[in-house]
Amino acid sequence: MTKIVIVGAVAGGATVASQIRRLDQDSEILIFEKDRDMSFANCGLPYYLGGVVEERDQILEATPEEFYAKKRIRVKTYHEVIQIDDNRRTITVLNRQTDETFEESYDELILSPGCSAKSLGFSSDMIFTLRNMEDTDAIDDYINKHDVKRALIVGAGYISLEVLENLYRRGLQPTLIHRSRGINKLMDQDMNQPILDELEKRGVTYRLNEEVKAINGREVIFTSGIVETYDLIIEGVGVQPNSEFIRSSNIYLDEKGYVPVNDNFETNIAHVYALGDVITSHYRHVDLTAHVPLAWGAHRAASIIAERLNGNTSIKFEGYLGSNIVKFFDYTFGSVGVKPQELQKFDYEMVETKQNQHAGYYPGNETLHLRVYFEKATRKILRAAAMGKDGVDKRIDVLSMAMQNHLTVDELTEFEVAYAPPYSSPKDPINMIGYKARNK
Amino acid sequence: MTKIVIVGAVAGGATVASQIRRLDQDSEILIFEKDRDMSFANCGLPYYLGGVVEERDQILEATPEEFYAKKRIRVKTYHEVIQIDDNRRTITVLNRQTDETFEESYDELILSPGCSAKSLGFSSDMIFTLRNMEDTDAIDDYINKHDVKRALIVGAGYISLEVLENLYRRGLQPTLIHRSRGINKLMDQDMNQPILDELEKRGVTYRLNEEVKAINGREVIFTSGIVETYDLIIEGVGVQPNSEFIRSSNIYLDEKGYVPVNDNFETNIAHVYALGDVITSHYRHVDLTAHVPLAWGAHRAASIIAERLNGNTSIKFEGYLGSNIVKFFDYTFGSVGVKPQELQKFDYEMVETKQNQHAGYYPGNETLHLRVYFEKATRKILRAAAMGKDGVDKRIDVLSMAMQNHLTVDELTEFEVAYAPPYSSPKDPINMIGYKARNK
Repeated sequence: MTKIVIVGAVAGGATVASQIRRLDQDSEILIFEKDRDMSFANCGLPYYLGGVVEERDQILEATPEEFYAKKRIRVKTYHEVIQIDDNRRTITVLNRQTDETFEESYDELILSPGCSAKSLGFSSDMIFTLRNMEDTDAIDDYINKHDVKRALIVGAGYISLEVLENLYRRGLQPTLIHRSRGINKLMDQDMNQPILDELEKRGVTYRLNEEVKAINGREVIFTSGIVETYDLIIEGVGVQPNSEFIRSSNIYLDEKGYVPVNDNFETNIAHVYALGDVITSHYRHVDLTAHVPLAWGAHRAASIIAERLNGNTSIKFEGYLGSNIVKFFDYTFGSVGVKPQELQKFDYEMVETKQNQHAGYYPGNETLHLRVYFEKATRKILRAAAMGKDGVDKRIDVLSMAMQNHLTVDELTEFEVAYAPPYSSPKDPINMIGYKARNK
Repeated sequence: MTKIVIVGAVAGGATVASQIRRLDQDSEILIFEKDRDMSFANCGLPYYLGGVVEERDQILEATPEEFYAKKRIRVKTYHEVIQIDDNRRTITVLNRQTDETFEESYDELILSPGCSAKSLGFSSDMIFTLRNMEDTDAIDDYINKHDVKRALIVGAGYISLEVLENLYRRGLQPTLIHRSRGINKLMDQDMNQPILDELEKRGVTYRLNEEVKAINGREVIFTSGIVETYDLIIEGVGVQPNSEFIRSSNIYLDEKGYVPVNDNFETNIAHVYALGDVITSHYRHVDLTAHVPLAWGAHRAASIIAERLNGNTSIKFEGYLGSNIVKFFDYTFGSVGVKPQELQKFDYEMVETKQNQHAGYYPGNETLHLRVYFEKATRKILRAAAMGKDGVDKRIDVLSMAMQNHLTVDELTEFEVAYAPPYSSPKDPINMIGYKARNK
């Protein structure tokens, strides 16, 4: 009987375990999770914090007991894998509740340890990061117990934006600072303007090029010289891979500590797979390394690993497109393709349209700003970005499907949109990008 | 100087004229339109009737005077083309206001005469069809002058459904009958159930397998034996091509009176093009004739004809996918690909999913019913249909882009969705179709 050991029980780990069991009723499947909870919906955490998602069990999808009862998959929480011996095919596990360590053997090892939030390192009981359900509970508890009003959000990445919106909805008074001008970094910076407009509209203070210099009690001293008092600080200043334990093995890590995998999600060591936020792979549409720490990739990897372990060698990963999307109050920001800062690697052209998202005469119409970057020589689409109050997700998804098929910008004229006045126009913004590209 | 004559000034005719002028400042462009109005938004007519679209000039996009002033394109309304001499390159035109006829020569002739509504042939001043702005005005006027309450909608195609919803919103009491059980015919019949549910929910009477047998004053006698009194009847019982005048020429018509065109939208006769609802072409993804009388195709044809006339021979039409969509109260029904009745020409398999349209825990979630038909031997997608309250247009558009690229059902697993809880799931319904197809 094959023994499959998985490190990490969140999106990647729990999903790959389920997928394996779906195809294979016999193997022993064992998951070690260093933290308290397994299989929570991490993308839903900000919304749980804001009360938008009300039921705890909507976020906390399974307990180890339920998982074992349903799928005969054993999950050991508070169990941290601290060492891998890939020659002997064993791992060393620390039981964080008893402080005992033990060895466990594996036939196949699957690494899904994820990332941890970075911290600025200030010592204060009002500082939190948000990566898992424990963090969420701690923040929630702190808000309730300390009658929190003023909250400082440090960093303006997409999770910070979701947290800010949700704290605002909860009735807190948030302030946002970011150390540079580059907020919501997967998006074209000029298309982020509505983020700042939405903040201003709601009277939410924000400062760019601003950092925390020191914290004294509730007093926060900023590099700008400003001093303000806060009841809560949420740090969203980046993540780092939970891969220190992997250094004990022959498994290769890149210079940032991520695990490169091949198109079967295998590491450089036989019988060791990896998936989730800890891995790096490559783009589908261009020849570049890609790190896309998002849920779709984890689920896709889980499916492919399970198929491979079950002997299906015909399926392989074709690479990422980097599709991403975030809602911020009334606006949606989405993009697909290489990141803005990766565009410089190409000789590219940009074409954009700002037009009605559906028939102008039909009520509720909103302007969509859609932008496509393409490579001059090949006219292949490199990247697309969209912003607006409605229809952003649709256009990014259509362009993702286009890029999956290596479409040229010109072929966007041929996209046959499903048109009726409430949904689109006979010349959809996607068609218009194609038409506008003719003269470029 | 080239003289380009266009027959019809609605979606096809007005758009092709504009597109030609955009590329070519010199040619003489002359349009003959048999009816009162040019360039109205015909897809918006039901919504104008219902008061959803309030401003008349949002629907009536241009007058001949405005069109000439802006684009130097002459439009002659109430001018019906009654004959074509393709040897001499002349047409005969009837001025319907003066009853005079005259000849006009052309270098290039573009036919966009559209279709007319069929009628059941009963004689009654309360019977209307809805194809253009004149019809809309006549219905609107009749409703206002005759204090209309009870309206009978005959036929349950997508325009009838839009008309019914809009008359209901206007405060009328509509009844729907259809001669068979096959309503909203581009949709899979079992997926149309919410149409009937929506009618019942609102207390709107409907009867299938029902026809009008006779009309006496306001009394309508049905084939079922039922007799009811109505104030207004809207017939939506199909259309026929406005192509009788073409029979005077050597231009080929098919057995139903439609004009087959090649991939340049040329008829069998040199210097005669056709576009809009009157043409037939072929599908893009399978080798079958296709008649897709919808706005996207007219706009695409207009662009291609204009490019061809301007000497660009590199662009050709790749065929239709048949994308279509209709809103009916809270529901959306969309499909793309071959029609349900055309599936029998293939050895196909069907796979479907009914799942959350976005993350289940995020508020406002609705179930999406998505269905994909694929050819067994090639696994290429033949048709997709979707139904639900939210997210239908997005999935049909993504699948349209997939079919544009001749995707197999299996490759849908690779679709990288833009995921955040308000928009989708890490395994989008489109991914699930691909995963579910594995065992078929």
